[in-house]
Amino acid sequence: MTFDVQVEVMLRPGIADPEGATIERALPALGFEGVTGVTVGKSIRFQLDSESASKAQETATQMCEQFLSNPVIEDAAISVTQAQVGS
Amino acid sequence: MTFDVQVEVMLRPGIADPEGATIERALPALGFEGVTGVTVGKSIRFQLDSESASKAQETATQMCEQFLSNPVIEDAAISVTQAQVGS
Repeated sequence: MTFDVQVEVMLRPGIADPEGATIERALPALGFEGVTGVTVGKSIRFQLDSESASKAQETATQMCEQFLSNPVIEDAAISVTQAQVGS
Repeated sequence: MTFDVQVEVMLRPGIADPEGATIERALPALGFEGVTGVTVGKSIRFQLDSESASKAQETATQMCEQFLSNPVIEDAAISVTQAQVGS
């Protein structure tokens, strides 16, 4: 079975996020008020062949730990959904 | 009211994604088989003060069009959820 996997890798709370801070600083000058706590991370999507959703989740977790994220400074959120038939 | 907004900016289909291609090529050597269609994008999260969820969605869409994404080569998916009380 094929599963669609989405991995969201965000900096852990407390880790400096200069990209987010720059966006936040620029927003009022562009007419957007009331925006706080901007953080920028990565979103990685792929298709994974696996026996079951739990196996797919396990494989994705291993991939995150090994090289998709840096667990020292980043948190990874994984979501696995079964790929639509025909895709 | 405060809303949590997540914006996922991914390259449009057909646009070259060298980062995703590099990950995909590296995976078999690291022991992960059956992974295809790797695409890498950005995930941007922030809190937004707004009257209603629909207003928040509208503001986020404007932000995307103006500077969070490049509509020529990128698609943006916006999800708005009401922030939890106390956060």
